[in-house]
Amino acid sequence: MKQTSRSFSIHRHSTQNKVEETKDLVAAEEPLEIRIGGKSLAVVMRTPGHDRELAAGFLWSEALIRSRDDVLDIIKCGRKGEPPNENILDVILANPDALNWKDLVRNTFTSSSCGICSKASIEAIHQKFLPIETDDFNVSQETIYSLPQKLRAEQQMFEQTGGLHASALFSQEGQMCVLREDVGRHNALDKVIGSSFFSNELPLKNQILLVSGRVSFEIMQKALSCAIPIIVAISAPSSLAVQFAQESGQTLIGFLRGEKMNVYSGHTRISV
Amino acid sequence: MKQTSRSFSIHRHSTQNKVEETKDLVAAEEPLEIRIGGKSLAVVMRTPGHDRELAAGFLWSEALIRSRDDVLDIIKCGRKGEPPNENILDVILANPDALNWKDLVRNTFTSSSCGICSKASIEAIHQKFLPIETDDFNVSQETIYSLPQKLRAEQQMFEQTGGLHASALFSQEGQMCVLREDVGRHNALDKVIGSSFFSNELPLKNQILLVSGRVSFEIMQKALSCAIPIIVAISAPSSLAVQFAQESGQTLIGFLRGEKMNVYSGHTRISV
Repeated sequence: MKQTSRSFSIHRHSTQNKVEETKDLVAAEEPLEIRIGGKSLAVVMRTPGHDRELAAGFLWSEALIRSRDDVLDIIKCGRKGEPPNENILDVILANPDALNWKDLVRNTFTSSSCGICSKASIEAIHQKFLPIETDDFNVSQETIYSLPQKLRAEQQMFEQTGGLHASALFSQEGQMCVLREDVGRHNALDKVIGSSFFSNELPLKNQILLVSGRVSFEIMQKALSCAIPIIVAISAPSSLAVQFAQESGQTLIGFLRGEKMNVYSGHTRISV
Repeated sequence: MKQTSRSFSIHRHSTQNKVEETKDLVAAEEPLEIRIGGKSLAVVMRTPGHDRELAAGFLWSEALIRSRDDVLDIIKCGRKGEPPNENILDVILANPDALNWKDLVRNTFTSSSCGICSKASIEAIHQKFLPIETDDFNVSQETIYSLPQKLRAEQQMFEQTGGLHASALFSQEGQMCVLREDVGRHNALDKVIGSSFFSNELPLKNQILLVSGRVSFEIMQKALSCAIPIIVAISAPSSLAVQFAQESGQTLIGFLRGEKMNVYSGHTRISV
């Protein structure tokens, strides 16, 4: 099992010109190659751990798999003549012939017919994942306020290294269902999605997603791939994240700090 | 000229159950397609502004261009039969035949001969960009301590939106040379590199790079593409960033806060 953090010898400078040689724990970052049927699909830089979840979540949010049955197995493998490698995973699909490799190589945005713009980017995603139409999932303001403290209490790796993004799912009542940490914010969310994939809980129509940092277009796209109705961020959203939420029927909350927050979209799902 | 922020109507919840409808400025995020000679190379999600710098910096840090003379022009263009688009840039190379498109599509890491691992990732970069061999560039501890305040004072967009990463170059004496902000941390650095590219100042052998957030492998790779000897981050480095710095002869500083910092690599360049 790979470690999620590594120790390095450092020089720590502190006030009054003090310099000491000491050890410091740093969040691990390593490449993971994801293959499908032996063919290389992508290399992501991730924190080792929950790698099969990462691979499954990545494939799910790219719409390459649509149900638990689509994946027969995910196995470690090696290069030609080499033993299996912790950093290479091969996804064995039930129906590999259904996969269009050409589509994978061609960029989603550049194939859009209406030029490259925010609108085209959002439409390209809606071709794969439908907007959320119902808004019968409601959560109290107090439940939202309670989430960051619960997240922080469980962020063990962050406490050690200060260098990890977190992504977590909560129930309507604010109970934490799954938490994953990673040097990459997208990886943390892919791992959460992969966890739900393996427990056969996708889509996540009655869950709240909390992310430790900022929210971009890509985070919103991954959330929509699971039909998550409420996305909450400790920090700022981007303009395209807000537009995406508005057009996808998602509730988007940012700057959740203490008993304050900004609701950028889908305000009706929050009860005061 | 595209705007770097956008205003949205939001619901702001504050203490004592107060909810008000108000306006909020959000950092702009839009797709930018980078083409070479009319052929699509990449789509990046970026904050509009300094787009030609972004394109040039991206190409430089991918080792696709090596000198100012390699680029004849960077022009806005449109899709077939459409007017030029703010979100599509075409780079006109002086010698387009020298570019190997096959190499661009093939992933760097997967072509490494020794399997996929941290070591292979670092070696793949060193095939493009040599490690820094000299360490005759020195900076005082006090100069390093003075940088974050100078950065913050100039981060105009961050002040408005709270949603932007910053990347800046400083001289040996701590004078700011260039600052760029973007929703993507890699974009902010690519814009800084592109700015230096257009002013014909690359490589940056006598500069200090300050980044507002964390430092990953990819940030270190981009810094090495310009031979920047000292990289300073307000927040945490990843393990692969530290390994990369050690093997590339770079000075890497993290957790720079007040008069405290951790020096992860290349301590001899910092004088107390």
